[in-house]
Amino acid sequence: MSTWINGLPATQLNADDRGLAYGDGLFRTLRLRDGAPLLWRWHWARLQADCAALRLPCPDAGLWLGELAAASAGVADAVAKLTLTRGAGPRGYAPPTQPQPTRIIQISPRIPPAAEFYQHGVAVYACALRLGHQPALAGVKHLNRLENVLARSEWSPPDYAEGLLCDSEGWVIEGVMSNLWIRRGRELLTPQLDRCGVSGAARAWVMEVAGSLGYQVREWRLRPADVLAADEAMLCNSLIGFWPIARYQQRRWSQFPAADALNRAWAEAG
Amino acid sequence: MSTWINGLPATQLNADDRGLAYGDGLFRTLRLRDGAPLLWRWHWARLQADCAALRLPCPDAGLWLGELAAASAGVADAVAKLTLTRGAGPRGYAPPTQPQPTRIIQISPRIPPAAEFYQHGVAVYACALRLGHQPALAGVKHLNRLENVLARSEWSPPDYAEGLLCDSEGWVIEGVMSNLWIRRGRELLTPQLDRCGVSGAARAWVMEVAGSLGYQVREWRLRPADVLAADEAMLCNSLIGFWPIARYQQRRWSQFPAADALNRAWAEAG
Repeated sequence: MSTWINGLPATQLNADDRGLAYGDGLFRTLRLRDGAPLLWRWHWARLQADCAALRLPCPDAGLWLGELAAASAGVADAVAKLTLTRGAGPRGYAPPTQPQPTRIIQISPRIPPAAEFYQHGVAVYACALRLGHQPALAGVKHLNRLENVLARSEWSPPDYAEGLLCDSEGWVIEGVMSNLWIRRGRELLTPQLDRCGVSGAARAWVMEVAGSLGYQVREWRLRPADVLAADEAMLCNSLIGFWPIARYQQRRWSQFPAADALNRAWAEAG
Repeated sequence: MSTWINGLPATQLNADDRGLAYGDGLFRTLRLRDGAPLLWRWHWARLQADCAALRLPCPDAGLWLGELAAASAGVADAVAKLTLTRGAGPRGYAPPTQPQPTRIIQISPRIPPAAEFYQHGVAVYACALRLGHQPALAGVKHLNRLENVLARSEWSPPDYAEGLLCDSEGWVIEGVMSNLWIRRGRELLTPQLDRCGVSGAARAWVMEVAGSLGYQVREWRLRPADVLAADEAMLCNSLIGFWPIARYQQRRWSQFPAADALNRAWAEAG
């Protein structure tokens, strides 16, 4: 794995970084092909929105793109994790008035998910942990991810490929590392993320391309019963594309026309 | 400032530490006098409880105490911040089955709060941010502290010394960096921390010593109106002891018998 910090190869950062102290920062995970990020437009939009939510100055796109290319040199199919923190600071919650953000790029070779996940779908675990509501941070891919860590430790592969999370009121929100879509006829529905959850780049991409594939998209409040009653359900993120769900609680699915169509369009877009 | 990581002087840690990636860890801030932590028994109890909540192996007390003394050598009155993370790990939320926790000790000279805070009390800001409910993490002093960062950025000193936080249902929970007590006659009430908030060592100390000072303690659900109606209100943490509240919203207080008594007992205990 190759790591760059603030534009230079480095593996360590200051122990007084606010990213460590308070999770005061954000991150994105994306795929690089020959040094260029796939679906950068959507990632960049989310990165800017998340920076605004945390009142963090966002480095220029050119800076990110140049460093992504340099850090991934020699890795044709790579996964890049971008982290941006509010940088070092003295003890105490008060953000520095002139923060010097820390920019971290971590590159690793991409290991493609098993082909069967796309062909036959995945089994999804129903997590017991409930996401708390925090409208001020909802949708943001920030570094406060203990809920995901706790939820992810509820199951072990290979029985389940992913877990589905509900909020404290029982609404379905997302996968632990992915966003959820369900299909009703020609309609694709995804949970609203105004109170909790992470708004991913792949989810934003679906909203833009679904129309051209003949689907209408809608953000909605969904119950587990809505998932169970769906014609199809799938999980998406920037690394996996779309995993059709084959099993959730007592329900089984075996036909995945929307996930298939989205995966084809995804491969073409990339 | 002096920093030790895993038992050795060091200022940097690996960029793939889960403390940075997910806030997957916890911390404590305490006072050292000639290398020995004050109120260690309460800190140690909280540290163990928090480790259990995150399923993190807790290093032995002897290890912490030895390193605190070594790292603070030459600083007679010091502030120590202890951080424990789940250590380095590969990308992904799943906790390593055999984590190698990272232990960080950061020492800085203690700057005593202004004497007038104790004599005349402090003005407290009513934060707009509402704490979200997450029972799985309530009470734990973990590294997911973006709510505190956002709340702390709502005001600037010197107008207010601290901010008071309510939860999403409007119950008063805590200060941004402290716990709250209110007094009704001979009764000291502090908010229940079963849904959000941080359970501090000073708060636990009050529960143990209040009886000997003639006060009854109780954990309770409190509204801002209960604070406004209180005979006295105060904020506590391990570094400040007890700050009487002189002003909160439209209310003013000028007599602080419980805070005075607790500060005297605190000075004797330390």
